[in-house]
Amino acid sequence: MTSQSTYVKTEIVGTSDVSISEAINNAIGTASHSLRNLDWFEVIEVRGSIRDGKASSYQVTLKLGLRYDAKA
Amino acid sequence: MTSQSTYVKTEIVGTSDVSISEAINNAIGTASHSLRNLDWFEVIEVRGSIRDGKASSYQVTLKLGLRYDAKA
Amino acid sequence: MTSQSTYVKTEIVGTSDVSISEAINNAIGTASHSLRNLDWFEVIEVRGSIRDGKASSYQVTLKLGLRYDAKA
Amino acid sequence: MTSQSTYVKTEIVGTSDVSISEAINNAIGTASHSLRNLDWFEVIEVRGSIRDGKASSYQVTLKLGLRYDAKA
Amino acid sequence: MTSQSTYVKTEIVGTSDVSISEAINNAIGTASHSLRNLDWFEVIEVRGSIRDGKASSYQVTLKLGLRYDAKA
Amino acid sequence: MTSQSTYVKTEIVGTSDVSISEAINNAIGTASHSLRNLDWFEVIEVRGSIRDGKASSYQVTLKLGLRYDAKA
Amino acid sequence: MTSQSTYVKTEIVGTSDVSISEAINNAIGTASHSLRNLDWFEVIEVRGSIRDGKASSYQVTLKLGLRYDAKA
Amino acid sequence: MTSQSTYVKTEIVGTSDVSISEAINNAIGTASHSLRNLDWFEVIEVRGSIRDGKASSYQVTLKLGLRYDAKA
Amino acid sequence: MTSQSTYVKTEIVGTSDVSISEAINNAIGTASHSLRNLDWFEVIEVRGSIRDGKASSYQVTLKLGLRYDAKA
Amino acid sequence: MTSQSTYVKTEIVGTSDVSISEAINNAIGTASHSLRNLDWFEVIEVRGSIRDGKASSYQVTLKLGLRYDAKA
Amino acid sequence: MTSQSTYVKTEIVGTSDVSISEAINNAIGTASHSLRNLDWFEVIEVRGSIRDGKASSYQVTLKLGLRYDAKA
Amino acid sequence: MTSQSTYVKTEIVGTSDVSISEAINNAIGTASHSLRNLDWFEVIEVRGSIRDGKASSYQVTLKLGLRYDAKA
Repeated sequence: MTSQSTYVKTEIVGTSDVSISEAINNAIGTASHSLRNLDWFEVIEVRGSIRDGKASSYQVTLKLGLRYDAKA
Repeated sequence: MTSQSTYVKTEIVGTSDVSISEAINNAIGTASHSLRNLDWFEVIEVRGSIRDGKASSYQVTLKLGLRYDAKA
Repeated sequence: MTSQSTYVKTEIVGTSDVSISEAINNAIGTASHSLRNLDWFEVIEVRGSIRDGKASSYQVTLKLGLRYDAKA
Repeated sequence: MTSQSTYVKTEIVGTSDVSISEAINNAIGTASHSLRNLDWFEVIEVRGSIRDGKASSYQVTLKLGLRYDAKA
Repeated sequence: MTSQSTYVKTEIVGTSDVSISEAINNAIGTASHSLRNLDWFEVIEVRGSIRDGKASSYQVTLKLGLRYDAKA
Repeated sequence: MTSQSTYVKTEIVGTSDVSISEAINNAIGTASHSLRNLDWFEVIEVRGSIRDGKASSYQVTLKLGLRYDAKA
Repeated sequence: MTSQSTYVKTEIVGTSDVSISEAINNAIGTASHSLRNLDWFEVIEVRGSIRDGKASSYQVTLKLGLRYDAKA
Repeated sequence: MTSQSTYVKTEIVGTSDVSISEAINNAIGTASHSLRNLDWFEVIEVRGSIRDGKASSYQVTLKLGLRYDAKA
Repeated sequence: MTSQSTYVKTEIVGTSDVSISEAINNAIGTASHSLRNLDWFEVIEVRGSIRDGKASSYQVTLKLGLRYDAKA
Repeated sequence: MTSQSTYVKTEIVGTSDVSISEAINNAIGTASHSLRNLDWFEVIEVRGSIRDGKASSYQVTLKLGLRYDAKA
Repeated sequence: MTSQSTYVKTEIVGTSDVSISEAINNAIGTASHSLRNLDWFEVIEVRGSIRDGKASSYQVTLKLGLRYDAKA
Repeated sequence: MTSQSTYVKTEIVGTSDVSISEAINNAIGTASHSLRNLDWFEVIEVRGSIRDGKASSYQVTLKLGLRYDAKA
């Protein structure tokens, strides 16, 4: 086995009352409190709830890719 | 049969010259004129038309979930 | 155009605290109050909520097929 | 909310003993009796029944797109 | 960044010799020993093994959604 | 070529008026009359017919995996 | 185990130099020489070869559904 | 690297007011004006527009496979 | 062969440090330097890279549809 | 019905302790003992088992295409 | 709840400059430093980077299945 | 519009009588004769032909990603 990098993908749902982008950044920001080496994200699903005839919250499912640290 | 809630999902395409979010809200706003109890949305597809080298309109296909009112 | 049958497929979510089957039958039972000629169903998705370490409700998304009655 | 168009997509199954095209046109023709503003179709699935070693009927599932008329 | 909730989705396979429902509840019950705040599940796949001409075990793959606790 | 095992997957639809599980077991039971070495199943699709406002029959499409016996 | 019907689905590719329909019927016709009780078909894929700037042959992949005869 | 053949797949949409087949052949015919060595096609999507209660145009998305000519 | 329009679909990835919309418009803007007759886009995938606990770049994969000009 | 060729596709899982290629060839080799006219294969899935921190066996699911011999 | 086994599936990306197999084994080898009871893998995606006209690295996304140890 | 990079994805099929890897490298090698700035590949499909009870050729469909050079 060589010393090549390994990555883990973890699935996470960010939410925001404001926008899709803020939901993405809320998910990444929260995950970065406990996960090191976050490297990339992939948007899997966008949905949300409706109140008073408009989108009242956005829920964005992401996969986060992070460099795996075998020593941890 | 118990008194559990039932929901209907209906597929709708909102459009906007401005942004993906406005296309989502246009679809929900228009639907809420004739559909009661709209509860959630799921983004199915994002596409649009091109004019003069940029996106000139966004077309967002949603599924809308609404509480089913059997008495209606 | 011949007199061949036409069918409509409508997407619906049934719920039950008890079982997947009851969620299916709740959806069909509720739909049959306002839709005539229900003919078949297809299970699209099974999900649910969790409370106290077990499934506390089942939410089953179905497509219902019904014979289209052009005179209606 | 701007005055942008909104569209609804509805799923329908047309049948014909003769051909795929006739099944498509039977579905559209029947739907146009009760739905206004039909705009486009998308073929989702083609299947059929078999009798005496050949296709005896075609069943074509379509999504129909129609302009949503909020005043209706 | 606002204080919106974030959720994690984790994939788990429950098994049971008895039924699909028991496999779902076995997965949730086992996961709840080490994961807090389990909120919802989604059924991804149902399979099983065969012995003596019948299903001898059910293996149900779920995604579990849990509220993310950044302080943990 | 080594003596590694080979498996065949065959697609089958079981039916039952009673439940999804019985439809699975009916498919496996019937297949075991003519197929030896049935090893596992995967549920591909669940659908059914509707009568009198409830599910009147379940049709479950399975893939069956069986050990391939080259001498047969 | 009740006496409910069981069905087998088998995947087959029909070809024709003339049309998609003829490719479907060639597949069904050929299969009916050795398979009894053919009941329905589902179109899985349509492709073909090109010669001299036009489609020179159609290859249609179908699933054929047939009633399973345990006594056979 | 051996002298094995390489192929390119290009996605194209043919249209016709008459039939699905003509839309396929229009796409291939037009492409053959500027692309050499067209070898096969795969149907990806069939859709169309509706006028006066029937299909008024067919739009068929194809992938075209062509032998890659590195010297070109 | 009639004179019906033909379209080509080409897959392209736009990037932006700012937003999903800007990534879409960067892709379209760059493509319009060398491709004429761009007509529509479809969003295929949204992903990006992460730095310092937030999205540092958006990568949006699009399909671009353009009218095919056989004389070119 | 013309004399066009018909093909059958059958799903098979080959295994090998050594490599993905050997698993493919084991499946084809075993199938060729009882199936004539094998023409092509398509890889559907690659999985395997793990022992002592490395892949200890490869399981490759293939579809095999074979020319159908109606006289057989 | 019975004492049936439960499994967790985790998504991981192995890399190698040499081959797909080595990328698979690098992922499993690295994961086995911190995860016990690794049981099986499923290949989800194979991609890589290109340098000097050939594949310069392989990136293989796997799901790893491991027996869940509730006492851990 | 900022000066962000744009990428194009092109679909290509490499072949080899020897191995999947060689088919990948044949595709990349051939493409690099006429396409500059090849950056990454994604494996879309692996298939091949069979002769004498074993795989006689591998056909690997790839997407190639390349940096778009607007000045070209």
